[in-house]
Amino acid sequence: MTLKNKQYRLAARPVGLPKDSDWEFVTTDAPVAGDGQVLVKVHFASLDPAMRGWMNDAKSYIAPVGLGEVMRAGTVGEVVTSNNPAFAAGDFVTGMHGIQQYGVSDGKELVKVDPKLAPLESYLGGLGMPGLTALFGLTDVGAVKEGDTVLVSGAAGAVGSMVGQIAKIKGARAVGIAGGADKCRYVVDELGFDACLDYKSDSFLSDMKEPLKTGVDVYFDNVGGDILDQALARLNRHARVVICGAISQYNNTTAVQGPSNYLNLLVQHARMEGFVVFDYIKQYGSGVQELATWYSQGKLQFKEHVDTGIENFPSTFLKLFTGGNFGKLVLKVSED
Amino acid sequence: MTLKNKQYRLAARPVGLPKDSDWEFVTTDAPVAGDGQVLVKVHFASLDPAMRGWMNDAKSYIAPVGLGEVMRAGTVGEVVTSNNPAFAAGDFVTGMHGIQQYGVSDGKELVKVDPKLAPLESYLGGLGMPGLTALFGLTDVGAVKEGDTVLVSGAAGAVGSMVGQIAKIKGARAVGIAGGADKCRYVVDELGFDACLDYKSDSFLSDMKEPLKTGVDVYFDNVGGDILDQALARLNRHARVVICGAISQYNNTTAVQGPSNYLNLLVQHARMEGFVVFDYIKQYGSGVQELATWYSQGKLQFKEHVDTGIENFPSTFLKLFTGGNFGKLVLKVSED
Repeated sequence: MTLKNKQYRLAARPVGLPKDSDWEFVTTDAPVAGDGQVLVKVHFASLDPAMRGWMNDAKSYIAPVGLGEVMRAGTVGEVVTSNNPAFAAGDFVTGMHGIQQYGVSDGKELVKVDPKLAPLESYLGGLGMPGLTALFGLTDVGAVKEGDTVLVSGAAGAVGSMVGQIAKIKGARAVGIAGGADKCRYVVDELGFDACLDYKSDSFLSDMKEPLKTGVDVYFDNVGGDILDQALARLNRHARVVICGAISQYNNTTAVQGPSNYLNLLVQHARMEGFVVFDYIKQYGSGVQELATWYSQGKLQFKEHVDTGIENFPSTFLKLFTGGNFGKLVLKVSED
Repeated sequence: MTLKNKQYRLAARPVGLPKDSDWEFVTTDAPVAGDGQVLVKVHFASLDPAMRGWMNDAKSYIAPVGLGEVMRAGTVGEVVTSNNPAFAAGDFVTGMHGIQQYGVSDGKELVKVDPKLAPLESYLGGLGMPGLTALFGLTDVGAVKEGDTVLVSGAAGAVGSMVGQIAKIKGARAVGIAGGADKCRYVVDELGFDACLDYKSDSFLSDMKEPLKTGVDVYFDNVGGDILDQALARLNRHARVVICGAISQYNNTTAVQGPSNYLNLLVQHARMEGFVVFDYIKQYGSGVQELATWYSQGKLQFKEHVDTGIENFPSTFLKLFTGGNFGKLVLKVSED
């Protein structure tokens, strides 16, 4: 019996928000593992803001997804057949198999994970790329230290939620920015941030005063736009602005909004620095170890927003840009 | 005989470019040195872009000049009378006496200079704040190293001209940006930059290709605006963008233009960092020493644009914003 493989391919380069016609939904035969390869059944695919950038035909830190290619995405799944001595059928692995139900790999980028330690989808979230992004961004780029005030946007999101929790572990104050009262309550009551500001509230600007009255030492930016400018206006001397993303700008059809308060970097002798998690590939192992240790000590919480059914990929993906997800967005693409 | 003191005071806060009515020209009696004070006859006043910022009623790294106060400016002059054992009549000193002919000081901020080593006005230029700004900005903030390509805007200006020359001393390539063919020739032929790009030329964007074909490791920005965006588009991995000023934006009556290419910091894991020279006050002494040594070895050249007559201050000051000066702009405010 030949396995069937449903997959989403990039059909057109989107202008603004991706439309249904930018995708092609295909059912084909599953690939077969060749010499040294493994065949993986994908259980969950990770849906991330960065994927929007990979859809543009622009020079970046990684090549764009080609038209007609399976949409790139991080995945976690189970090895079905293995011609690679490092893996056996039944192993669970993270990889980059994209939005499809079966993928093959030479094993180089696969990392074995243990579904008994944490739910499988955690390895796409708090114990995966978003957790590592938060860890390296806050500690290396942001150089967080005890007593700092850390402000983070997208605080209920996959990366932001980890940034604030790691800030607390490091002895800093954590102030989040999120959209809506429910997310803000989650950020403070469940994640343990010191405060959370609702950017959708009419009183957003005045709400910032009290929790940020001693200024911002580290601003971890996931959103860009006006919120970045508000943060720049509140920097302390020698503050660090970590540029991790700019989700407010990814679907722009006009120019990206540059931060008009950037001259505050001069006034405060502050710096703004960007990074992508792939820059830290050699430290993934030790990073996951550190996160897993904190998780086992009950110091980290994370939440996934799981939508089910590969056919729902286009609409589920849009939730990233409309605030429709609450927790790390993952798509269940195969039955267990 | 009472000494007469001509001075310019700030009469109104400018909107956009300063107008004549923003100034009050006053002739008053010169001050008298009190206990522990010295009276200094100002020979030259330094005219700098940063002064435009000091005229705004905005929080910054230094308090604004108050309405009715003498306009703040760096100065070099001669001690006339001294009630301070550290100074004697006939000493030459730099200070912050502002746009006036006589000032008193308790001596704390005065630094003795030797007019035999270099012309007096040099201590407001290459051997003064602009030289120190270039030195600390390029070496500390920019972390320049051998083999880097250093791009600097305002390359014919007081700071920019020193940035490129110090880059060469440090074994880097120096590429300047300046306005007009004359300035560009000066930057290459007299200052020894490897190349200079004329931003007023229609071919500016294509002119950048060849000298920047290996990308930019350090961009030292004095201008902001579109040129900052062009530089951001050409950054190498781990590049450093030094924010020293933004002269294209200082007279804006609309919002400052933020750099819309700032997300290239993320793609290239690059940083953008601001500073003001006052942050390095403890290193002024060693910095001047280093600059003076290079100067004595013939490795540094600098040029002053000297206008004469304190009454010409308002129009001379505007040259900073219209490109009307060529070399460090100083105003001779008293006869020798």
